[in-house]
Amino acid sequence: MRQSQHEITISTRGKGLIEFTDEARAFVRESGVGSGLLTVFCCHTSASLLIQENADRDVQRDLIAFFRRLVPDGDPLYVHTAEGPDDMPAHVKAALTQTSIGIPVANGKLLLGPWQGIYLFEHRNKPHDRRVVLHVAGA
Amino acid sequence: MRQSQHEITISTRGKGLIEFTDEARAFVRESGVGSGLLTVFCCHTSASLLIQENADRDVQRDLIAFFRRLVPDGDPLYVHTAEGPDDMPAHVKAALTQTSIGIPVANGKLLLGPWQGIYLFEHRNKPHDRRVVLHVAGA
Amino acid sequence: MRQSQHEITISTRGKGLIEFTDEARAFVRESGVGSGLLTVFCCHTSASLLIQENADRDVQRDLIAFFRRLVPDGDPLYVHTAEGPDDMPAHVKAALTQTSIGIPVANGKLLLGPWQGIYLFEHRNKPHDRRVVLHVAGA
Repeated sequence: MRQSQHEITISTRGKGLIEFTDEARAFVRESGVGSGLLTVFCCHTSASLLIQENADRDVQRDLIAFFRRLVPDGDPLYVHTAEGPDDMPAHVKAALTQTSIGIPVANGKLLLGPWQGIYLFEHRNKPHDRRVVLHVAGA
Repeated sequence: MRQSQHEITISTRGKGLIEFTDEARAFVRESGVGSGLLTVFCCHTSASLLIQENADRDVQRDLIAFFRRLVPDGDPLYVHTAEGPDDMPAHVKAALTQTSIGIPVANGKLLLGPWQGIYLFEHRNKPHDRRVVLHVAGA
Repeated sequence: MRQSQHEITISTRGKGLIEFTDEARAFVRESGVGSGLLTVFCCHTSASLLIQENADRDVQRDLIAFFRRLVPDGDPLYVHTAEGPDDMPAHVKAALTQTSIGIPVANGKLLLGPWQGIYLFEHRNKPHDRRVVLHVAGA
């Protein structure tokens, strides 16, 4: 068994989902691992990861709308407000989604379902450069 | 170190939790891995994974009731409605739970707590065949 | 490649977040693994795991406040109430957060972002001893 690691940076432009399935696929291909496990890790607490449908873009729009309504900006509940009305809601949304996801690899390919894409979920309003670490181990 | 992979299909009958801890245990046993890590991955975006209590079945009933109330079918918020009033809520519930879970293995056994079971969480109303990939790596 | 496993016990004192990043770092250091993957697993269904900001303690306060409001104790929705008004809400909060998290390791160090800490999230009101399994595999 062997392993490989790589960090990518995803530039965001406000709240939204940014797919990076192609980057993950390329990393696995270049690693030479045929069978194993890819782990994706987000190095932030106000952005997170999701595997979601990548066929109809309305799914992304609706996911964002749901989280915006469930965890609204400017909620008077919060004390941690110094970094803006969208900061604490961003932490909550990150807590409700994923910081890391493991995806099995077989025959050199990610075992994603036909409509599954890997997304970075940006929860802040301003653009950010988000670091995501890819790690694969296998044979 | 070595690894093993297997795909199982779980047939669902509408919204609900279906336990597959026994299948995961059997897979680990047959893999011959004594110490390592099992990763469970759900290949869908309208069904997901959960580790939850498997002692009192009311817990499952209450989890389903909570998610049904938090993410109701037919919510006018959504644009992605072509596949039915339960489709977009299914994506949201999948986003709020897990697509993959890692469980350590020791002495050939999953290190689950005494009341932990591994569940597929079906979010759609109609029956589906759900694919779950099991991957174990260890020694 | 090689691996190592260790169980720690975290004593809680009611609802709250307890950081154990230092224990995870020490485990990785003692394992001798330079590059690999740490998996953290919580053996309970009424406590869970989160990676969140560890700079401003108000973030923890606000996370607890959000989950307390979203999943209030004593909700008449639930049937599973024999173990107290905070029991079923604890299961729901665990379902909404994480049971396991994978964190890449490089140069013997966890690839956490500068403000990321690893937390046990206690959802019950009474003190509990919570078991967390640490597993690292790498080279």
